Amino acid sequence: MSAAGRLTGVGLGPGDPDLLTVKAVRALEAAPVVSYFAKRGRRGVARAIADRWLPAGVEELPLHYPVTVEIPFDHPDYVAALSGFYADAAEALARHLAAGRDVALLCEGDPLFYGSFMHLYVRLRERFSCAIVPGITGMSGCWTAAGEPMTWGDDVLTVVPGTLAAGPLRARLASADAAVVMKLGRNLPKVRAALAEAGLLERAVYVERGTMAAEVVMPLTEKRDDEAPYFSVVLVPGRGRRP
Amino acid sequence: MSAAGRLTGVGLGPGDPDLLTVKAVRALEAAPVVSYFAKRGRRGVARAIADRWLPAGVEELPLHYPVTVEIPFDHPDYVAALSGFYADAAEALARHLAAGRDVALLCEGDPLFYGSFMHLYVRLRERFSCAIVPGITGMSGCWTAAGEPMTWGDDVLTVVPGTLAAGPLRARLASADAAVVMKLGRNLPKVRAALAEAGLLERAVYVERGTMAAEVVMPLTEKRDDEAPYFSVVLVPGRGRRP
Repeated sequence: MSAAGRLTGVGLGPGDPDLLTVKAVRALEAAPVVSYFAKRGRRGVARAIADRWLPAGVEELPLHYPVTVEIPFDHPDYVAALSGFYADAAEALARHLAAGRDVALLCEGDPLFYGSFMHLYVRLRERFSCAIVPGITGMSGCWTAAGEPMTWGDDVLTVVPGTLAAGPLRARLASADAAVVMKLGRNLPKVRAALAEAGLLERAVYVERGTMAAEVVMPLTEKRDDEAPYFSVVLVPGRGRRP
Repeated sequence: MSAAGRLTGVGLGPGDPDLLTVKAVRALEAAPVVSYFAKRGRRGVARAIADRWLPAGVEELPLHYPVTVEIPFDHPDYVAALSGFYADAAEALARHLAAGRDVALLCEGDPLFYGSFMHLYVRLRERFSCAIVPGITGMSGCWTAAGEPMTWGDDVLTVVPGTLAAGPLRARLASADAAVVMKLGRNLPKVRAALAEAGLLERAVYVERGTMAAEVVMPLTEKRDDEAPYFSVVLVPGRGRRP
């Protein structure tokens, strides 16, 4: 079994290709097989970020998400579709690993922070050697784009998915010193209302595609309530102790 | 004024020098002056992480913290000592910037996440051009070292400084889906008690110097209650939706 390949989850950071780490670049240069998640018919963001660092002739294994956009997150059909997809994807990686080929799995942001990588990692880590190269999180790229110091002194940082229901969302934000709201999409009106009720709306900064070419930064009060893209967050910078 | 230099906060990541980004390496190679925080008589962790990337002959400007370890955080003498130190440090940087020399200020982890950089940034950003290169946070280095997926699905992540009082610490942890407790030091017994009261002790992982040569990972239940170093955290991985 010593001839089996190794799976490496490679964090690519928030979008700027120069925000890959030296270690990530080396991992991409060394891997005979590169895999990544994408919607069917699209190359996907991870593959685009990694593009300049991939050696010519590397074998590519795209993993195409099933089309689930019309099914709610908590519906059994959604869970079943994704579960089957992750199982199939894990087997597709396993075939390369069992044949002795190392696989680099591209991960936007950091692999262990809300990463799709984790679903394959937990399915494969008992069977194969695994390694992880951390990456700069999307939220860090966004607060860098905004130039906003996020946490001072004893500030507590709360990272909240915008997919939460209105009540829990409001409660989490009401107790936050500093906050990041992720997964905005269609949840932006709900997030805005929760921030207003928590008294945080005036402090909130909207950031879209932080560190990418199409980066947008503005006060949330200036952002219209239309849909926000997946790579967008709302930041509430902390106000803790600053001598 | 167009001849003034630019201040760049350069995130160095959690400790492994190969976890600098390509952009950070370029920033270090380009800067005629490199500055960093350190205790008097020590070179400091930031300077050590950056060591292999600094060009020969770069001008170094160490910023030596005043000795405040015997004064409580919230004491006016502590605040005054640090405030004076940051003002002096900002002026030391300003002299280089005003003379047209770019300065790279080294930052462990990410510059805008509990970073000392922020204290100089807010003092200088109105007067000089500033840039920020984000870095991988120390906590990300620690959960990578532990190989622990931190946040799944709708998990809320709570990042709590161990310096909080026992009551607020317990309350924050009791409501957490996933948690990171930073700034352990002498706070470890208090943190352990708060985790136990929140029912999280069995899930807690202790990580010291994640991604550094002296890295330590163990269940918190196996870590003795002696002092923990500054570069240590307790992780409580989330258990959210995983299809």
